[in-house]
Amino acid sequence: MNSVIETILNHRSIRQYEDRPLSDDQIRLIVQSAQAAATSHFVQAYTILGIKDPERKKKLAELTGNRHVETCGHLLIFCADFHKHELSAEMEGVDVSEALQTTEKFMVGLIDTALAAQNAALAAESMGLGICYVGGLRNRLPEVSELLRIPKYVLPLFAMTIGYPANPSGKKPRMPVENIYFEEEYPNDENLLKKQLQQYNETISQYYTERTNGKRSDTWTGQMAQFFKEPARAYMKNYVQSQGFDKK
Amino acid sequence: MNSVIETILNHRSIRQYEDRPLSDDQIRLIVQSAQAAATSHFVQAYTILGIKDPERKKKLAELTGNRHVETCGHLLIFCADFHKHELSAEMEGVDVSEALQTTEKFMVGLIDTALAAQNAALAAESMGLGICYVGGLRNRLPEVSELLRIPKYVLPLFAMTIGYPANPSGKKPRMPVENIYFEEEYPNDENLLKKQLQQYNETISQYYTERTNGKRSDTWTGQMAQFFKEPARAYMKNYVQSQGFDKK
Repeated sequence: MNSVIETILNHRSIRQYEDRPLSDDQIRLIVQSAQAAATSHFVQAYTILGIKDPERKKKLAELTGNRHVETCGHLLIFCADFHKHELSAEMEGVDVSEALQTTEKFMVGLIDTALAAQNAALAAESMGLGICYVGGLRNRLPEVSELLRIPKYVLPLFAMTIGYPANPSGKKPRMPVENIYFEEEYPNDENLLKKQLQQYNETISQYYTERTNGKRSDTWTGQMAQFFKEPARAYMKNYVQSQGFDKK
Repeated sequence: MNSVIETILNHRSIRQYEDRPLSDDQIRLIVQSAQAAATSHFVQAYTILGIKDPERKKKLAELTGNRHVETCGHLLIFCADFHKHELSAEMEGVDVSEALQTTEKFMVGLIDTALAAQNAALAAESMGLGICYVGGLRNRLPEVSELLRIPKYVLPLFAMTIGYPANPSGKKPRMPVENIYFEEEYPNDENLLKKQLQQYNETISQYYTERTNGKRSDTWTGQMAQFFKEPARAYMKNYVQSQGFDKK
């Protein structure tokens, strides 16, 4: 196993950091790594905001509900961005608003941004830093957008806290490869899939039992049923469309 | 610079491969690497299909408009997948269809899948393999879905060709870090952004001029204006919703 795969397999979310900022050289290398990811038709459809100001980090910790947003060594906000493409079209005297508003371009923006973010995560981890994705950024996007002065055709998707790990955490067992990877076609066999989930439940239940001395014994299907029971962030469709995305 | 960042920065899309399949051990390690990526609330909302059958690869090469889909050493199809969560809820006697249909969960599925895919890409590249993302998978998704027997709440997003590089390609210069990364807030200064794009145009134009002995001198803004002029894959919104995603 090479060091790239070792870094990949060693990932765990870090939520406690030393009080020690990243250097500008570290930040630059992380951003350059993000930019090296593949990008659909060379669109490079993202902007990364870096937050250093303590007051702003504190405010974003409140808005996202994540304390490590305030205490991390550096905070990145990953945004899908077609504002630059709108400006490009303006420079070229072309109207591109129809295309920008399609679901297809919304998907391109999300995928482009996520590929870049994962490169940033691995670059940071390879330097001995820890990271955590913060989907909680999407809890209150209108307020986040106001704070960060986000224009139309830009969509903040998630944050990433980065820093020197103060308290390395454990790693929950992922699904077996057999639950995720299938050859030739999707397995249209609900009994097989349910049996796989049942087996995975045993792994997860055992993991919790061992970590909590028997206090918890959650299953994966139980967690998921609970998590998906009520729609979360139900404002999202309206917000996304108000930013100019996913309208047609 | 460490070997992880070297691998990341050395990425280029490979579209010509040796006639040499991947081993099952290689495939397994690539999938395990994909699975090690962060996942929102532990949902692991993706399925990866691996295509080996030559006839099926040929058919997918037609559907995606990419010849390397047929000639690569191994073909992966990355799908956002909430079908397993629907089944989990059924096992737990809970109805989760409201949540699954939200734009928020659509975003979670896309981001989760893309993070996993980028790990797979880097794992493959670290083994000396080349890869290429194939967004062309989205050209004709209804036919792709029929061929791969994709059920409701599963959405094929892109393919990835993998194999031993036969003809290493060049690397187009990405935007300068200053065009992508801003501190504290989004720069609401159109003149600054346009000036940055103008400067980047010069870099790109020079790149094409040098590579084609002056036959091409495209600019980035010119390419983007052209690319976004007409909406592409305009069927996407209907298709995505017919699979159960992004409806409310």
